[in-house]
Amino acid sequence: MTDVDLEQRAINVVRGLAMDAPHAARSGHQGTAMALAPLAHVLWTRILRYDAADPEWPDRDRLILSAGHASILLYSMLHLTGQGLTLDDLKDFRQWGSRTPGHPERGHETPGVEVTTGPLGQGAGNSVGMAIAERYLRGRFGPDICDHRTFAICGDGDLSEGLSHEAASLAGHLGLDRLVWIYDDNRITIDGPTDLALSDDAAARFRGYGWNVIDLGDAATDLDALETGLRQAIDHEGAPSLVIVRSHVGYPSPNHTDDHEAHGYALKDDEIAATKEILGLPVDEAFHIPDDVLSLYREAGRRGGAAHDEWRSRRDALAPDVRARYEACLAGTVVEGATLDLPSWEPGEKIATRKASERCLQALADAVPGLVAGGADLTSNTGTTFAAEGVQSPAEPGGRQIYFGIREHAMAAAQNGMALHGGVVPVGGTFFVFSDYMRPAVRLAALSGAKSIFVWTHDSVGVGEDGPTHQPVEHLAAVRAIPRLGVIRPADANETAGAWTEAIVADGPTGLVLSRQDLPVLEGTDPDKVRFGAYVLRDPDSAPDLVLVGTGSEVSVCVAAADLLSEDLAVRVVSMPSWDRFAAQDDGYRTSVLPPDVPTLSVEAGTTLGWARWADDAVGIDDFGASAPGALVLERYGMNAENVADRARQLLRSTTSR
Amino acid sequence: MTDVDLEQRAINVVRGLAMDAPHAARSGHQGTAMALAPLAHVLWTRILRYDAADPEWPDRDRLILSAGHASILLYSMLHLTGQGLTLDDLKDFRQWGSRTPGHPERGHETPGVEVTTGPLGQGAGNSVGMAIAERYLRGRFGPDICDHRTFAICGDGDLSEGLSHEAASLAGHLGLDRLVWIYDDNRITIDGPTDLALSDDAAARFRGYGWNVIDLGDAATDLDALETGLRQAIDHEGAPSLVIVRSHVGYPSPNHTDDHEAHGYALKDDEIAATKEILGLPVDEAFHIPDDVLSLYREAGRRGGAAHDEWRSRRDALAPDVRARYEACLAGTVVEGATLDLPSWEPGEKIATRKASERCLQALADAVPGLVAGGADLTSNTGTTFAAEGVQSPAEPGGRQIYFGIREHAMAAAQNGMALHGGVVPVGGTFFVFSDYMRPAVRLAALSGAKSIFVWTHDSVGVGEDGPTHQPVEHLAAVRAIPRLGVIRPADANETAGAWTEAIVADGPTGLVLSRQDLPVLEGTDPDKVRFGAYVLRDPDSAPDLVLVGTGSEVSVCVAAADLLSEDLAVRVVSMPSWDRFAAQDDGYRTSVLPPDVPTLSVEAGTTLGWARWADDAVGIDDFGASAPGALVLERYGMNAENVADRARQLLRSTTSR
Repeated sequence: MTDVDLEQRAINVVRGLAMDAPHAARSGHQGTAMALAPLAHVLWTRILRYDAADPEWPDRDRLILSAGHASILLYSMLHLTGQGLTLDDLKDFRQWGSRTPGHPERGHETPGVEVTTGPLGQGAGNSVGMAIAERYLRGRFGPDICDHRTFAICGDGDLSEGLSHEAASLAGHLGLDRLVWIYDDNRITIDGPTDLALSDDAAARFRGYGWNVIDLGDAATDLDALETGLRQAIDHEGAPSLVIVRSHVGYPSPNHTDDHEAHGYALKDDEIAATKEILGLPVDEAFHIPDDVLSLYREAGRRGGAAHDEWRSRRDALAPDVRARYEACLAGTVVEGATLDLPSWEPGEKIATRKASERCLQALADAVPGLVAGGADLTSNTGTTFAAEGVQSPAEPGGRQIYFGIREHAMAAAQNGMALHGGVVPVGGTFFVFSDYMRPAVRLAALSGAKSIFVWTHDSVGVGEDGPTHQPVEHLAAVRAIPRLGVIRPADANETAGAWTEAIVADGPTGLVLSRQDLPVLEGTDPDKVRFGAYVLRDPDSAPDLVLVGTGSEVSVCVAAADLLSEDLAVRVVSMPSWDRFAAQDDGYRTSVLPPDVPTLSVEAGTTLGWARWADDAVGIDDFGASAPGALVLERYGMNAENVADRARQLLRSTTSR
Repeated sequence: MTDVDLEQRAINVVRGLAMDAPHAARSGHQGTAMALAPLAHVLWTRILRYDAADPEWPDRDRLILSAGHASILLYSMLHLTGQGLTLDDLKDFRQWGSRTPGHPERGHETPGVEVTTGPLGQGAGNSVGMAIAERYLRGRFGPDICDHRTFAICGDGDLSEGLSHEAASLAGHLGLDRLVWIYDDNRITIDGPTDLALSDDAAARFRGYGWNVIDLGDAATDLDALETGLRQAIDHEGAPSLVIVRSHVGYPSPNHTDDHEAHGYALKDDEIAATKEILGLPVDEAFHIPDDVLSLYREAGRRGGAAHDEWRSRRDALAPDVRARYEACLAGTVVEGATLDLPSWEPGEKIATRKASERCLQALADAVPGLVAGGADLTSNTGTTFAAEGVQSPAEPGGRQIYFGIREHAMAAAQNGMALHGGVVPVGGTFFVFSDYMRPAVRLAALSGAKSIFVWTHDSVGVGEDGPTHQPVEHLAAVRAIPRLGVIRPADANETAGAWTEAIVADGPTGLVLSRQDLPVLEGTDPDKVRFGAYVLRDPDSAPDLVLVGTGSEVSVCVAAADLLSEDLAVRVVSMPSWDRFAAQDDGYRTSVLPPDVPTLSVEAGTTLGWARWADDAVGIDDFGASAPGALVLERYGMNAENVADRARQLLRSTTSR
């Protein structure tokens, strides 16, 4: 038997697994997995630099399956190459508690899964961030330490999503020539053939982005052509590459090749049998893997071992201070022995929290060498400036300032890619109202535990004249609703420093919600208490008659209202920068801050949705804002001491009359 | 004085207004408005078909300023051409209560503003919907009744956003040759020159979408070249056109032409004076409009009057039944005299609400002739099928089925454009989890009162094997947080019919949140009570000890839990399909359904955020879901009668022990 035969049999084994696992689960997508088995074979046996013994080797090539519905293909290759996924894992595909969920999930104990994909376009966006992270580390630590490539497999869906435009345009601008997208042009979507809805000339479009385009035509089963195309892409300098491959969903199933029904539904017994017959696989044995096929892949999995060893030696030879910085990058945190030396402000000063945030970021540059920062065309407005650290570009690969352009979604998806690549703590800024534009990626940051820091400024109707299109109202509720996302809205500059500490020590993503307008630095705000989520900022001498609880710019309104009320009432003021952190405290702490038997009024320049958990009544804004000077808009919407004091007295009256 | 001189002076007057209004407001963007004054002049005096006496003439050309920050340009032209905006309105730019807010707002009493723009890319997306609506009405009622064009002015920001990719790709596929985008290629963004972040070859990209591209180069001030280019675009058949114009922000300001600071900050006194001197405008007079310039524009505003009269005659000549359908289209509602004959189901049947919704949609086809429907590649999955009504395409302009492709954001933005064009009630479907992808457009639907119907199916972890990437958890809270958005999650098929009635009679947008899985048709659900938001579904014979309140698929869980508890407890079950509708009821009704003194437990397969307003405790899901069969996932997350009964008893114990 020649190697060619073995390779072909190996590919057919992968196709068999791609049918068997969905069949066992009665659910799943075998179509694309079958079509791309030859591509996967070429990637894992001839192209990718990896060491199956350590799927987390920092200098491995990254392979992202943006077409995440074809997860069984990825899982099959991870098992076959010996990266720690077992045959039982494959048999457990899409079952409760298994390591092989319906779509690949980073952080789900599936070794070798780089990012969480499935929502279309996200993997493509992540891959741009991975390529940036690779270049950044190469720029900082040299090619001895970082010298790899990023591949993403994209389908029609990925490239139809707007995110793909932003990500590709950004990658083209940045000249990320270590990035290769493989476009699986299978011309099938869930609704049917792509020509129902899609007529793009993808090659023309990507050339418009400045990409190198390699069209392999109908080569999806031609291993040497695939390898040649991928090597051309790898060797191309100065621009990312798109390799277009025309594939056939469900191939070689006799009745479901190129059938959109083969996309999302597990094939039936007889169809599988007929296909296995074509493939030369035993019809009555599921999950069939002959020893020689397994050996072929296991050997491929060991190919990178020597390179890994050599890399380890080079890393071990790093000077101690360089090594410390490198490890801090990988850990996404502070250099060992360094401290977070954040600025502080005196009560009475006035400074917008976005400006305070900008100063914090600069102060962290040395201690947290993984930090890179940028804005979606609002760099200066959002204070995500890092220009003193160089502008990320081919000429300055170690540059820490990234101009993301007007591409909020790609920014967030790229941030996730950087964070999950490791080595980089990415900071991205835009106006809070435009958090909507990046929301799918923010969700995936939370789901996959990507330590992305989202800087959302201009956080209320205080934005002013730009009007309701630019004034967030519902956004605090909307981001608080995302599980596992840290959300912090500091009351002033000192809490902003505390929020930055929290973001740096966090395991996952954090959203910092910051004011456009100047805010007074308050007596009593404490950076060290931000981690509790809420704390007593000011307490009366006697037991409180009333609690005013606010967040961000409304904490100072609460303080002023407390002053108005203090003649006849004992008023506590609570600053509550983070709901999620407060919810995580024990009952004792929570009731010590917000006693259940004391009438509590919340004040926040946003929707009242959700405040009923923490307060008896809520001063908020449950409609869209308006275009006028910001201070006036806040005033008209009741965000002032007089209105808060009135509402507090109303609350006390209604409580008494109960 | 020649006409050429008058035209040039007129353009300079517009530039003067573009400086004076931001100056008076001490806020605003004069840069693009000044740069595009010649383009605006050509559009409103030579190209656009409109009748200033009636800015709402249904057969007018539509002009969308997607670059909404240049609002003062639009407002100036609307005033000058006599569409009802006064000089005082211009002087009130960006002030509280004015008709000239920072960004154009549809529905804000600003005559002539077609859509709300500012969030980048949205106007471009809307324009695709406008062009679809125009073609639809032309297809249905003929060119005598509908025969106009749609223009959108887009900046670098619009074309950088991913939405522009989706919208342009969709327009190219649909062959919308009545659509013209004007790309204001000014090479300036807020951060600085576009080359900080943008290297696209826009012409190549749009040719990749199948568009006709006309590059006018540096012709931004050449009126005849602009006119010629626009006419070429208008005359091109079979594809939409992109007209590229290189303009100069802030022109002819001596120090701020092509300066990114001229984008967002009002120019100072001396700079305005120097610029007015160049423009030949009186330096010491703000808002200067000479009579001959006003006459020029007022005359232009009357140009379309005769065409409007002729159109009115043709419309009046329509056969009565055709006229009735046309008026129903324009009103976005039911043909006069027709009834909404929606299906009903018997208790005991089982049907997914997405399937019930599909049947409702078919049942509405005749009564609501403006309805068009489609999905973002999930047409059949979401039940947004209308194929019997023809597929929207050049060959079938009256087709009511739209294949939006894998473009959720463009779908929603196009829906808004159709709705605000008038004549169409657009229905768009995707999985609920992907409502995140369209969220910026959903927000604008709510803000601008666009009657878009969003069909969001697969509405919980009940989605099953596809896993957490495809399972909505936080999305109910997230869409409920959007002001003015109707959100309805029906408990079963009969409530689904009620939800459709609500969507049809609504003035603004509605989100229908529907199950993937079959749900039992319940005893007592009432389509006519959906409008109250919540109602008592089942009441015990005695006063209730406990209220169980659920939405959607969890109402049947509440009923089953009530059965378990009924041996020793009097349990009321409340179905609550719509928070917003319930919140709008009076106190008396609300307390009659959810009595404040009866312990109340909510049950919903999503985040508990917000439920504290309605219930004393909440059974919900405050983390991401998991990949496994849907029924099992729901079970494991506690969405079952036993767990709800346990939690109810816990609640009663804690209430008693208080």
